Amino acid sequence: MAISAFAAPAAKQPLVEYAYEPAPLGAAEVEIEISHCGVCHSDLHLIDNDWRTSTYPLVPGHEIVGLVAAAGVESNLVVGQRVGTGWQRSACLACEHCLAGNENLCPFQEATCVGHPGGFARRIRTDARFVFPLPRELEAAAAAPLLCAGVTVFAPLRRWKVRAGAPVGVIGIGGLGHLAIRFLRAMGCEPVAFTSSPDKRDEVLRLGAVDVASSTDAREVRRFADRFEFVLSTVPSRLDWITYLQTLKPNGVLCLVGAPPGLMSIPAGQLLTSQRVICGSDIGSPGAIRDTLAFAAEHNVVAEVETAPMADANAALQRVRDNRVRYRMVLTN
Amino acid sequence: MAISAFAAPAAKQPLVEYAYEPAPLGAAEVEIEISHCGVCHSDLHLIDNDWRTSTYPLVPGHEIVGLVAAAGVESNLVVGQRVGTGWQRSACLACEHCLAGNENLCPFQEATCVGHPGGFARRIRTDARFVFPLPRELEAAAAAPLLCAGVTVFAPLRRWKVRAGAPVGVIGIGGLGHLAIRFLRAMGCEPVAFTSSPDKRDEVLRLGAVDVASSTDAREVRRFADRFEFVLSTVPSRLDWITYLQTLKPNGVLCLVGAPPGLMSIPAGQLLTSQRVICGSDIGSPGAIRDTLAFAAEHNVVAEVETAPMADANAALQRVRDNRVRYRMVLTN
Repeated sequence: MAISAFAAPAAKQPLVEYAYEPAPLGAAEVEIEISHCGVCHSDLHLIDNDWRTSTYPLVPGHEIVGLVAAAGVESNLVVGQRVGTGWQRSACLACEHCLAGNENLCPFQEATCVGHPGGFARRIRTDARFVFPLPRELEAAAAAPLLCAGVTVFAPLRRWKVRAGAPVGVIGIGGLGHLAIRFLRAMGCEPVAFTSSPDKRDEVLRLGAVDVASSTDAREVRRFADRFEFVLSTVPSRLDWITYLQTLKPNGVLCLVGAPPGLMSIPAGQLLTSQRVICGSDIGSPGAIRDTLAFAAEHNVVAEVETAPMADANAALQRVRDNRVRYRMVLTN
Repeated sequence: MAISAFAAPAAKQPLVEYAYEPAPLGAAEVEIEISHCGVCHSDLHLIDNDWRTSTYPLVPGHEIVGLVAAAGVESNLVVGQRVGTGWQRSACLACEHCLAGNENLCPFQEATCVGHPGGFARRIRTDARFVFPLPRELEAAAAAPLLCAGVTVFAPLRRWKVRAGAPVGVIGIGGLGHLAIRFLRAMGCEPVAFTSSPDKRDEVLRLGAVDVASSTDAREVRRFADRFEFVLSTVPSRLDWITYLQTLKPNGVLCLVGAPPGLMSIPAGQLLTSQRVICGSDIGSPGAIRDTLAFAAEHNVVAEVETAPMADANAALQRVRDNRVRYRMVLTN
């Protein structure tokens, strides 16, 4: 039976209704009846072909929640189970990275909506090893963004062993950043928010930040010199990285989960004398996604969402483009 | 009794004979009768006041080996014991970094020859907590460079948990780099040497490198794309960091122990998609120095040295300035 979806017919085009015949259900696959799908900035990049990897018609959507509608015989999931899936669709499961539990670094990985139709649809068929039972404590709409935005910020906090009590900076308080603030607070950390929207101040304090500062005013950033053990940057913008590096204590880590365009200029001396670290982090492995969901359920960390019917996907995408969503848009069927 | 030494009377001046009255021996201090002192590039920077921290007359030298000549009552060392001391002279021993065993990150740390007379001398008085018994297996001249160059390269290999069998790049095969090659080989790793002196090739293979390439020819560096788990850069030069980053596997680490001048240009995307890391490392803590010496004794890792009498310090410094030493100059009393 054909699957109803919304697809961009070509780069930068509005979505249109689109139906496709799915491939036969593989033994290790499940079909999900989609109830919710988050909207990520990556969906805009895919629609616009910013990364030169898009194929059209392109069905976006990779923060997917729904019920298992059909389960291949080798899947560990059962029909009716509530599940989610995120950016990554599959990996080779045989290379050194997969075998080390770093499937998100697999050179043969495939993405949910690159070369495959994504979650702006009624249903999706995908590899059950990248589909995760949703803990019952989590409400579907608010949990959908955990599958991509959530794991993207949670995984590096775990991998870098950010300790309870640690002072941590979060740059950019959007879909990713607001979840980072909530996760950090739940971990017992003291998150300081850096935002280009000073009008968000009271809201961001309510999210759990202990302080809020302008992300673009170097004098404000400088107030936090030698303060942080970890700084997580969620923004795709050029910032004054030299000043941000100075906010790190010795052995402190600046971790990027958003990619600023162009080149970052880094003074090597700042890395040497205090043993500072700059690194990136890229979504998270299936293990990290399970960890994210379990922590979120235990500590009641979910996204702040706006919802809209799937049929209004174009208007929803426009709100994301305009940076007007606080803090994550989720489409519903 | 006055201590005989060699000192630069002013910035960039040749050393001259110099005698000074030491302060009374503190309860936690020892006096070392110096037998050997290595010559580090940092000594040239100190003599030249490149870091604007020098005071004159300046007695250089911070890779010091000798016998304990006098021991304060609170020191754990005894007269006659063979010991060494390195770049760091003291720390507060009370801040969060000291208490975590990272005394080399202490904001109150003092250096052996910044504001104190160093090791180009007959004797030195210094804090016994930064003086280390030399394992008997180690020959004094060849061990002296372990106190600074050795720990500087060994500490990050340990801190970043470089595993046996790991493919590792070492950029710059001088005083630090040649020790890195030897340590890595003793750890069971596969070190590849990048050098600006291709004529060193056979020598560097004898040191233990599994391959040698030009550090400045991007085409040669590119041969090692996606190869290394760790790259250690010992050079103070501008290099093509973008190409070196591409030699890192996912989760790979580029660690700087030499400071290139100016700004490094780094594409954020290279950090994100493969979770690469750029960091610096700064000498090593007392614990790291003990670890370095113990590993060196166990695995017979020492420096390849040229020796010269202390009285020929100026000629020795000139050989270091001219990059003619293979691989470390050590002055002897």
